[in-house]
Amino acid sequence: MATASGQPVYRATTTAPVNIAVIKYWGKRDVTLNLPTNSSLSVTLSQRSLRTLTTASASANYPAEDTLNLNGKPQEIQSSKRTLACLSNLRALRKSVEDADASLPKLSALPLRIVSENNFPTAAGLASSAAGFAALVRAVANLYQLPQSPRELSRIARQGSGSACRSLMGGYVAWRTGEQADGSDSLAEEVAPASHWPEMRALILVVSAEKKDVPSTEGMQTTVATSELFATRAESVVPARMDAIEAAIRDRDFPTFAEITMRDSNTFHATCLDSWPPIFYMNDVSRAAVRLVHDINRAVGRTVCAYTFDAGPNAVIYYEDKDSELVAGTVKAILGASTTGWDGPFYENLAHLTAPGVSFDSIDSRVLDVLKGGVSRVILTGVGEGPVTVEDHLVTETGEMVNN
Amino acid sequence: MATASGQPVYRATTTAPVNIAVIKYWGKRDVTLNLPTNSSLSVTLSQRSLRTLTTASASANYPAEDTLNLNGKPQEIQSSKRTLACLSNLRALRKSVEDADASLPKLSALPLRIVSENNFPTAAGLASSAAGFAALVRAVANLYQLPQSPRELSRIARQGSGSACRSLMGGYVAWRTGEQADGSDSLAEEVAPASHWPEMRALILVVSAEKKDVPSTEGMQTTVATSELFATRAESVVPARMDAIEAAIRDRDFPTFAEITMRDSNTFHATCLDSWPPIFYMNDVSRAAVRLVHDINRAVGRTVCAYTFDAGPNAVIYYEDKDSELVAGTVKAILGASTTGWDGPFYENLAHLTAPGVSFDSIDSRVLDVLKGGVSRVILTGVGEGPVTVEDHLVTETGEMVNN
Repeated sequence: MATASGQPVYRATTTAPVNIAVIKYWGKRDVTLNLPTNSSLSVTLSQRSLRTLTTASASANYPAEDTLNLNGKPQEIQSSKRTLACLSNLRALRKSVEDADASLPKLSALPLRIVSENNFPTAAGLASSAAGFAALVRAVANLYQLPQSPRELSRIARQGSGSACRSLMGGYVAWRTGEQADGSDSLAEEVAPASHWPEMRALILVVSAEKKDVPSTEGMQTTVATSELFATRAESVVPARMDAIEAAIRDRDFPTFAEITMRDSNTFHATCLDSWPPIFYMNDVSRAAVRLVHDINRAVGRTVCAYTFDAGPNAVIYYEDKDSELVAGTVKAILGASTTGWDGPFYENLAHLTAPGVSFDSIDSRVLDVLKGGVSRVILTGVGEGPVTVEDHLVTETGEMVNN
Repeated sequence: MATASGQPVYRATTTAPVNIAVIKYWGKRDVTLNLPTNSSLSVTLSQRSLRTLTTASASANYPAEDTLNLNGKPQEIQSSKRTLACLSNLRALRKSVEDADASLPKLSALPLRIVSENNFPTAAGLASSAAGFAALVRAVANLYQLPQSPRELSRIARQGSGSACRSLMGGYVAWRTGEQADGSDSLAEEVAPASHWPEMRALILVVSAEKKDVPSTEGMQTTVATSELFATRAESVVPARMDAIEAAIRDRDFPTFAEITMRDSNTFHATCLDSWPPIFYMNDVSRAAVRLVHDINRAVGRTVCAYTFDAGPNAVIYYEDKDSELVAGTVKAILGASTTGWDGPFYENLAHLTAPGVSFDSIDSRVLDVLKGGVSRVILTGVGEGPVTVEDHLVTETGEMVNN
């Protein structure tokens, strides 16, 4: 804390990761509380590639209303019920702490200044809300020195953005749908830490961005309300897949993990197509990525890679590090050196490659053309850790926003 | 009959129509008998636009083995279990007729020469097997002067190609899944004749043909075996839709007919996507056609058109004649005069149009571009009658194939 203009400025800063679901969250049974119709499971991606950095600060110097600045732009915090719900929950927990120990500063009564930055461009088409709300909750919880575990905090992050609850932990993270009407048991929990299966890699193919057709919040409720296939997925298909993929993760059984991941992506998009009016997130480039993955697996003779698609056309391809040449090496050869995004912490065992890991003879020639024409950049990353407390604050000791 | 080379040549010739399902047939519960997992319903299309013409002839002059010539090419009839099953069934019925009346010629003992021609190019990407097997069964039944009704003959045509059973009748035709293991009650029946609702039109957008990815016979069994959503469609979704669309047809209620048609197409393709490995028949051009239909309906303020997609990317757009300008007129303005296929019997009330029926301002601009680039030809047609006996035989009086 600092006291430059009379009153102390309290600060805490954290990073938070992006996560990509392998069992998809699609459908809310309670829209206000963000309670899902089914459990989901994701892989937390390395913050060496993608992360949100957020500083939460509190000071009596600040204007009376809480403020949030995201990527240099002030946000309309008062109109965001989701943000207000998170902050209100966190303040209540701080109040309990203060009530139990009168020696503590009354931070719960102070205005907040929250500043957040993503290190990836919006144009990448990645859902940033998960990392953003996870970072916000983690940063304020740190500022307030809350004793709650990540699992307990996930109840709060979930109200900001459903999938945000899974970004409070690293590795392989389940979000249990829960049974209580108040959402008290709808929580994230670590199925396995990143260290259990650190070889998992993720190659994101960023598909040239059309305007997103239907925002996911709206789309998922259209599906819940209209798809006659949806209930089967939520009630019967997903519970079986959750059990199976958790076992596959425990056993580090990539082929099983991969098949469940691909099938659940397909089932999720099938329920979108079955919605009324229908929702399409995958396009011809996405379909080409699906073919590519099947063609690579067929050519290699075992399942070395898996695709998954969120509410957009980008493909995320999971594989194990030992198969980098076969998978990422083949994609790199298809897309050519001009595609951006190959450099970075996971590039080293690809840099020397001069030929595709899998011969182009094994791949549908239309697939090669469509991918080359439709993928503008890649992000090469892997499984990673949860939020990390850091000292590179985005608010100065005197409470000013840092200009980066 | 004629007797030029000693023995008589018996002939009968028929046309048969194409049909396009609005409740889709997808999945067999018995592969040999072509018994479906669910009932289906189709609109028989006018033979003024699309038809198969088939002559069945029998003569002791012919070589001992039955022969089939399709579009000028001899077919390997002995390796086609489906064709053999149809002919064997028809012969057995003829034998019964002969056994009951000794004065009749013993046609069941004579070799068959069957010659068939489609009036539409294979490149149109239309499933020709339905019209083909319907024409084959109808022609041989006529040659044999069988007393069986079209409904009874549908049991035989179904064994050639499932959807062929629906091409034995005109108008609006249901194929009842049936309950018997031997398929005896898996029959087509007329829900309403074409004259009940003659205003129905169909505009087929022929999408530049890629190679078809998965043949439908193989694809549907992949879906049955692997899609976890499939049973819900077959057991619960389709039965309710069959009841609802039959009522809509009885009431000539186009908006209800249209919504069910679109939703069932979407559900069918959703189960394809949910198959393992996934099956994609629709592409970005198909998706653009979906958008176009929704945009036209929204702009007009009522449901004036409906899309449906079979096992391929072609869109079939249903509408009523009174809305031709709004629907076909808009498509024509988008595709431009260079697109082939507009001429023909249903063109007259479009010929004078100089502007789209619906302003391009109401249509997503990407949709306009994708359709213009992706649709190579159209077929403008409407609901029509069932098979018609004709005299333009494809076999001469002396048993020779006619060279067209």
